[in-house]
Amino acid sequence: MADKYVDIDTLKHLLYDVHHLEELLERERFQDHDKESLDLFLDSTKSFADKELFPYIKEMDEQPAYHKDGGVIVHPQVKTMMEEGGELGFISGPFNYEDGGMQIPLIAQTASSYILDAANNHLTGYAGLTQGAAELIIHFANQELKDTYVPNMLTGKWGGTMCLTEPQAGSSLSDIVTKATPTEDGHYHISGQKIFISGGDNQFSENIVHLLLARIEGAPKGTKGISLFVVPKNRPDGKGGLVSNDVTTVADFQKMGQRGYCTTHLGFGDSEDCQGYLVGEANKGLSYMFLMMNAARIGVGRGASAIASAAYHASLQYANERPQGRKLTSDGTKNPEQKQSLIIEHADVRRMLLLQKAVVEGSMSLVLLAAKYYDLEVTARTPEEKNKYNTLLEMIIPVVKTYPSEAGSYAVNNGLQILGGYGFCSDFILQQYYRDIRISAIYEGTTGIQSQDLLGRKMTMGNGEGLQLLSAEIIQSIETASKHEALQPYANILGDKLKLTQKILETLMPHAMKGDYERFLADASVFMEFFSLIIIGWTWLDIATHAQVALTNGNGSFSDEFYQSKMATLDYFYSYELPKTAGQAEILMNASTVTIKKETEFIV
Amino acid sequence: MADKYVDIDTLKHLLYDVHHLEELLERERFQDHDKESLDLFLDSTKSFADKELFPYIKEMDEQPAYHKDGGVIVHPQVKTMMEEGGELGFISGPFNYEDGGMQIPLIAQTASSYILDAANNHLTGYAGLTQGAAELIIHFANQELKDTYVPNMLTGKWGGTMCLTEPQAGSSLSDIVTKATPTEDGHYHISGQKIFISGGDNQFSENIVHLLLARIEGAPKGTKGISLFVVPKNRPDGKGGLVSNDVTTVADFQKMGQRGYCTTHLGFGDSEDCQGYLVGEANKGLSYMFLMMNAARIGVGRGASAIASAAYHASLQYANERPQGRKLTSDGTKNPEQKQSLIIEHADVRRMLLLQKAVVEGSMSLVLLAAKYYDLEVTARTPEEKNKYNTLLEMIIPVVKTYPSEAGSYAVNNGLQILGGYGFCSDFILQQYYRDIRISAIYEGTTGIQSQDLLGRKMTMGNGEGLQLLSAEIIQSIETASKHEALQPYANILGDKLKLTQKILETLMPHAMKGDYERFLADASVFMEFFSLIIIGWTWLDIATHAQVALTNGNGSFSDEFYQSKMATLDYFYSYELPKTAGQAEILMNASTVTIKKETEFIV
Repeated sequence: MADKYVDIDTLKHLLYDVHHLEELLERERFQDHDKESLDLFLDSTKSFADKELFPYIKEMDEQPAYHKDGGVIVHPQVKTMMEEGGELGFISGPFNYEDGGMQIPLIAQTASSYILDAANNHLTGYAGLTQGAAELIIHFANQELKDTYVPNMLTGKWGGTMCLTEPQAGSSLSDIVTKATPTEDGHYHISGQKIFISGGDNQFSENIVHLLLARIEGAPKGTKGISLFVVPKNRPDGKGGLVSNDVTTVADFQKMGQRGYCTTHLGFGDSEDCQGYLVGEANKGLSYMFLMMNAARIGVGRGASAIASAAYHASLQYANERPQGRKLTSDGTKNPEQKQSLIIEHADVRRMLLLQKAVVEGSMSLVLLAAKYYDLEVTARTPEEKNKYNTLLEMIIPVVKTYPSEAGSYAVNNGLQILGGYGFCSDFILQQYYRDIRISAIYEGTTGIQSQDLLGRKMTMGNGEGLQLLSAEIIQSIETASKHEALQPYANILGDKLKLTQKILETLMPHAMKGDYERFLADASVFMEFFSLIIIGWTWLDIATHAQVALTNGNGSFSDEFYQSKMATLDYFYSYELPKTAGQAEILMNASTVTIKKETEFIV
Repeated sequence: MADKYVDIDTLKHLLYDVHHLEELLERERFQDHDKESLDLFLDSTKSFADKELFPYIKEMDEQPAYHKDGGVIVHPQVKTMMEEGGELGFISGPFNYEDGGMQIPLIAQTASSYILDAANNHLTGYAGLTQGAAELIIHFANQELKDTYVPNMLTGKWGGTMCLTEPQAGSSLSDIVTKATPTEDGHYHISGQKIFISGGDNQFSENIVHLLLARIEGAPKGTKGISLFVVPKNRPDGKGGLVSNDVTTVADFQKMGQRGYCTTHLGFGDSEDCQGYLVGEANKGLSYMFLMMNAARIGVGRGASAIASAAYHASLQYANERPQGRKLTSDGTKNPEQKQSLIIEHADVRRMLLLQKAVVEGSMSLVLLAAKYYDLEVTARTPEEKNKYNTLLEMIIPVVKTYPSEAGSYAVNNGLQILGGYGFCSDFILQQYYRDIRISAIYEGTTGIQSQDLLGRKMTMGNGEGLQLLSAEIIQSIETASKHEALQPYANILGDKLKLTQKILETLMPHAMKGDYERFLADASVFMEFFSLIIIGWTWLDIATHAQVALTNGNGSFSDEFYQSKMATLDYFYSYELPKTAGQAEILMNASTVTIKKETEFIV
């Protein structure tokens, strides 16, 4: 078993040096926190993860959650995660004091969650979804619902879920049919089926609070007729106790990965006794849900990057320990008398390690940046500032969700390959991470959906103002980097790629203007790959700028090797990953319409 | 469960129209076969696969092979595969009549094996390795060994394996230490451990014949001191029976995929009673093994392409049945009153389907081409002809093994994505194919090893004569295609890419000439990606040329839609896959040496 799953130094370097967390702490909301207290929070997260999460990662895969006697049996560490994690603030951390929270900046909370995800991605979702459900209640529900549900959720005594998907409606929420019928008592009768409900049940939680999308009878068709409800597994009986609320656990989906994190099929109102309590106004459910979606998408990106981190460190350790083969001599042969090399000495293995490091740390930085934008939005001093950071967050969010998921999967694939035959064997952890991470590109809007969002909505946001705002940030990084001779070549490349983005958009936009949205969006997934590389190229330029300053001034908090490794990874990213944009640009600008359905069907 | 796993029409189209199998049948060796008899062979393969293989694919994953009481328990269909498959000629097919074979062209046998692999990749290896082991005995062993072992192997009564890998020596065969000590009786005492031995044991086979690499005491170090032995699990007792030969099944590796295909750890001579029989001459074991390696590598490529085929058809069926979402209207919105689309109507889903079709059929054609080169070599009328086809086979073999493995994995990944959340669930087969295919890039020389072979050996073979010969074949395809107006643009692109290959080699070769092999080969894996796309671009140009002729003349054996689908897939490949070479070329020609180990270690 590998020993390390995350590099805490890199995490702190990104937090404090690259993303200037201390500047954020000057905001009034965060005035009770300082570097010391946040370091303590991260260190206690790490100790908890070392002791309670990481040791169980393999066991949770081998003994997956399962359905039994109408409930779901999960691994005992779920209880520890919820209760001790609740105590440590993993659920309540970012909330307002008045709501029972700790007003921890989301960027710091994200760093903490990253550690937990990297240690054991089967456990963190139980707390994460409870946080998301609590957040919806806090933001949009009335005081009574808040008082009834939130306190027990924040301590981890009760769990929480999001109930969106239905058997006939996966990505297409406009087609949900779960029914909410008003009653004279003010609550609604809920009836319907929800599938793929993560953390939907377990034998430890006294209660599970479902935040559920349903259609009130007579509501308009499509997304404008969807309302949000609190639907607890057990409802208060009015005497301080709980009674069953007719929520049935129909099944637990067995999966390829994240097998310890249950994925349930829930039935509501099979006995016509399921009460739901409207959150906010009727028919506004989807907009409420979407306000929380950015946080959820940061969460998926964070989790994927964290799994890739754990895989990277496991493969790095193996590469440092495994002797195999020899270097070629200058006549191109091998000398069997020579000692075997460690595989980390082979260029091809180093390529696969650098690839992983570039993806892991680049996406780690991006995920933290998204959380920082969120913090800056929440604590904005003016409406303009609020709008600016909201826009920046909106612009990058599809990439924040997708790049770690897709490139993370590619990174883990390379980590597995480093172990050769052992990588495929159950005794080694790489194959598990390979399976676990695969869900990330599907969760919370597939890559296809995210790509449509990126190209179809975000690139055109405010008539291009969103892209302008983001470009200005990137250009500022380019200008700062250009002051260092060693970084000029990289800064120039990124500048050129930014111009190439503009050129691509000029090729694609006319389709939209002509009303041919199908053509406009047909290659959205390719555009996602292209644009993601530019965004990650940007994060690496920022990281390298700080490394360069530290190396020049010799006053960094970390070793020279630490900073040199960042410079090498920048070089890797710009030499091996960013050049892929050349081919992607060719794809995006060619005239083929082969993927668009024609009169005659051609796939046989 | 999906219904279809391979498109027989495409397989026959490739065999007869694209690769002209009937011309091959004019060779004396194949004179007893004609199109009718080979079609019968393929059709009976398909019936057998439909009945005995495909229905068990999921079950074999869910009830993997396991170690028990010193043996390995495998699924009962292993017995059927070996015995009925043996009867149908799946083991003996390509061998000479005098050796008990049927002299079936390897290209036809490969098509048959493709069907079996696509139906159930957990079963075919048992027969395939037995065939490989028998082939080594037939080619290199003395008559007594042939008479003793081959007949029972060809009928499937006895199994066979290849024992190369040892715990301390994975890809590096020069470091194997299994010992062979000569005795006065002519045989050798064998002692050592072998790991990752596929099909190493099962409860049904009366005997398993291991073809094992070992070092005779006092042999030179490295690859020049390795000998090949027949080491049966049970040896003849001289009285018509068998006695144990001190081969121990130490363990069965549990794996992420291909779980029904056992992967054993074997011990030889723990009780100092393990006899081995030298095959051919001492110290020539590796060269014997390597003569068989091309067939083994065709087999891995074939298996990977076949798994991707099964995944493609499963995802295609899902896409044709699943309604989800709606097309955007001309103002960029969706109309919820409109009926849901089938997901196959979405451009992004069609992209993922075309991607799979392009990879599956392109690699299917390449695998068949390799087998055809083998047949042409075996039946060559002159030494020049023999040399030509041997060289062509050597040139493409690393791609034949690697492209289906790597791109196949990428294809299955996209197939899984089409199913959304269901793709990740055990109830659907996609997740299994995703796991199963992952071993292909590791088997029989990892992608890294294949890439070193491609760039380091094949590109420089005969001072570039090998590449010239292959290029001449490609150029001939380009010229033929250019006669059709519709194909000219594609032909031109391929010509340009061929020139780009030359340019890349001119950039890389000087490193080798200066003796800097490390630098020369550092990006071999990227070169593999690049060159593979050109090779598959070539196979698609050939396929499309035949489709174009059939469409123009209206005299093809298949429907117009069939040929149109080939044209569309050509367009997909040239519009979405081949352009990736632009970025790869940039990577290959840039000056970065970041992956090469320097004085100071930079990965932390």
